[in-house]
Amino acid sequence: MNYFEESLKLHEKKIGKIEVVSKVEIETREDLSLAYTPGVAEPCRKIYENEENVYKYTAKGNLVAVVTDGTAVLGLGDIGPKAGLPVMEGKAILFKAFADVDAFPICLDTKNVDEIVKTVKLIAPGFGGINLEDIGAPRCFEVEERLKKELDIPVFHDDQHGTAIVVLAGIINALKVVDKKIEDIKVVVNGAGAAGTAIAKLLLSSGVKNLIACDKVGILYKGIENVDDAKKELAKVTNPDNIQGSLADALVGADVFVGVSAPGIVTQDMVRSMNKDSILFAMANPTPEIMPEDAKTAGARVIGTGRSDFPNQVNNVLAFPGIFRGALDVRAKEINEEMKIAAAYAIASMIKDEDLNEDYVIPNALDRTVASNVAEAIKKAARESGVARV
Amino acid sequence: MNYFEESLKLHEKKIGKIEVVSKVEIETREDLSLAYTPGVAEPCRKIYENEENVYKYTAKGNLVAVVTDGTAVLGLGDIGPKAGLPVMEGKAILFKAFADVDAFPICLDTKNVDEIVKTVKLIAPGFGGINLEDIGAPRCFEVEERLKKELDIPVFHDDQHGTAIVVLAGIINALKVVDKKIEDIKVVVNGAGAAGTAIAKLLLSSGVKNLIACDKVGILYKGIENVDDAKKELAKVTNPDNIQGSLADALVGADVFVGVSAPGIVTQDMVRSMNKDSILFAMANPTPEIMPEDAKTAGARVIGTGRSDFPNQVNNVLAFPGIFRGALDVRAKEINEEMKIAAAYAIASMIKDEDLNEDYVIPNALDRTVASNVAEAIKKAARESGVARV
Repeated sequence: MNYFEESLKLHEKKIGKIEVVSKVEIETREDLSLAYTPGVAEPCRKIYENEENVYKYTAKGNLVAVVTDGTAVLGLGDIGPKAGLPVMEGKAILFKAFADVDAFPICLDTKNVDEIVKTVKLIAPGFGGINLEDIGAPRCFEVEERLKKELDIPVFHDDQHGTAIVVLAGIINALKVVDKKIEDIKVVVNGAGAAGTAIAKLLLSSGVKNLIACDKVGILYKGIENVDDAKKELAKVTNPDNIQGSLADALVGADVFVGVSAPGIVTQDMVRSMNKDSILFAMANPTPEIMPEDAKTAGARVIGTGRSDFPNQVNNVLAFPGIFRGALDVRAKEINEEMKIAAAYAIASMIKDEDLNEDYVIPNALDRTVASNVAEAIKKAARESGVARV
Repeated sequence: MNYFEESLKLHEKKIGKIEVVSKVEIETREDLSLAYTPGVAEPCRKIYENEENVYKYTAKGNLVAVVTDGTAVLGLGDIGPKAGLPVMEGKAILFKAFADVDAFPICLDTKNVDEIVKTVKLIAPGFGGINLEDIGAPRCFEVEERLKKELDIPVFHDDQHGTAIVVLAGIINALKVVDKKIEDIKVVVNGAGAAGTAIAKLLLSSGVKNLIACDKVGILYKGIENVDDAKKELAKVTNPDNIQGSLADALVGADVFVGVSAPGIVTQDMVRSMNKDSILFAMANPTPEIMPEDAKTAGARVIGTGRSDFPNQVNNVLAFPGIFRGALDVRAKEINEEMKIAAAYAIASMIKDEDLNEDYVIPNALDRTVASNVAEAIKKAARESGVARV
């Protein structure tokens, strides 16, 4: 099947993928008087009296804005807000299908960080959460950080944290398969953009001690020049021995490789230089950093990719629907580290120990039971970390 | 029935009134590959190649943003963006129910004109049209004017033009009942806010020659002080004899009264001072400027109000769904005077001459056939006035 041709046909036939429908009937004059004037004045008044009532009488509490500036759409790059719209609509319908979250695309006609932050703040009254999507690094870091500070609803950049959470889930299970402990392993993350940076940080929060981040320039180390501030910051919290060199140098003796970088840049020799029972998440799209069969023959034990036609697909849909479901349900003020780690463990726990094997460390992306499990974990972690409001 | 109590119950039970749903199935891995990655990259690329394709492959072309700052919500006034949300959701579901337009509430956390304009411009890529709602006068005039200039999609402030169009429709039919011509009549519009100003202007565009606008200060005349600039501008294009005085003075010899003002301010004596076969649209809510029975006994022939429990209800739902349906269908660059007048005549024409009478000059608000008739008229007028793009 030619996915591109078929997808084009589907989008043209349906003229887009989302629709805004009514939850109430509008058939009789009475219906109109309750859903609209004069009756509607009463919920308005109640919200005016107490702003929290907006969660009781409107759709806000179940609505997530999927916000993009269209600068880092899929592998297509900076294609602009209109061209990004099919992806945002896709994201919106996944939210609905997997977790009954109502999500709506907001495609912004600006790349300016101040304007993005300001606009999202100004439209926030109608939303229960903000999912940032496909905003290029390093701007995405500042956008998210500022919005998290300034808004009282959860703000979550899925390209960063969604990916990080699913990778962490995969690593948790892969470590069981190879019988290693997270605090003992050496991890190399290649590609220090939005996803790579978030993966590195979440792995550190989860107990990884020895983590080296690499980018096009090679290993990131304290004192490195010619990289942006976000990468300098990342260098400060990673690479404990402060080694310098190439990706190949970094991989010597590593237990885990995580790639969010470029096709084919990991060789079989590099895999051979890794520690015994190595784990690779090679997520370059559509062609991974190394093909699974090549990694296996070079000695890797567990390998995951971003593709659905190989085992262990890292697919964000395992994370974001349940994360927002849980966060909205408890009206979480934010989605914090504790909640992200809890989500990763919830995803990992979907595979029973007896079913776990090299080719099955990440649940199937279409498994609808994952989201509710993640949501429960998120609610618990939100309550325990004091960010739940109900 | 207690509409307020029942409305509260309905809103609480459903937790708001809107829902964002998928138009495509997401059941199988194949569905996912077409609606989302990898297939979705293809519509993205097509839009990147040619921006106009956004109308072909996304929901943009059928999506209207219902934008408010919450400053003039119903009769409740400046209750803020969150408290305004139930009204915006109500508007959204009316769009869907009456004209299959997908509409989504955008409630802005600012009253600043520059910020409102900027925000709407920045979120515009995902929308096919902008319906401004419940933004207070005189700021609403500047917001609309600037957005009309700066956006290439239709911008329509419904409180102004929706009301004006339905009033014009009512007047067109009422004049048939009393056998008077629009160019011969004297009209008094009381209340020079958003709706009153738009009504006055649309009536002038439609052939009314003698129109006097009044506000709390009395008749608006050239050289008047103590009113805002919008009212001074209105004075310049109305009141040809430049008379001064009170509403009572204005009404002497008038054929038509249009009130968007305050309960009970028109007396029976004032009606008696009007021309024979007078027409009154007394739309103060919930209590009209004069009760229909009082106006009738004082000699009025046709009287309309904003209420559904009296004849001739002026209800915007007769206008906005069909107007946007038509404007979206031809991708109109704007909604101009010609289109508004065409919409009014289309609404008026829904009542056949043989059915027309004093108590039936405006069609029933629940008549679903009105919107398609209005849409056809809008499309024709858009093409003839050169603003249709397809």
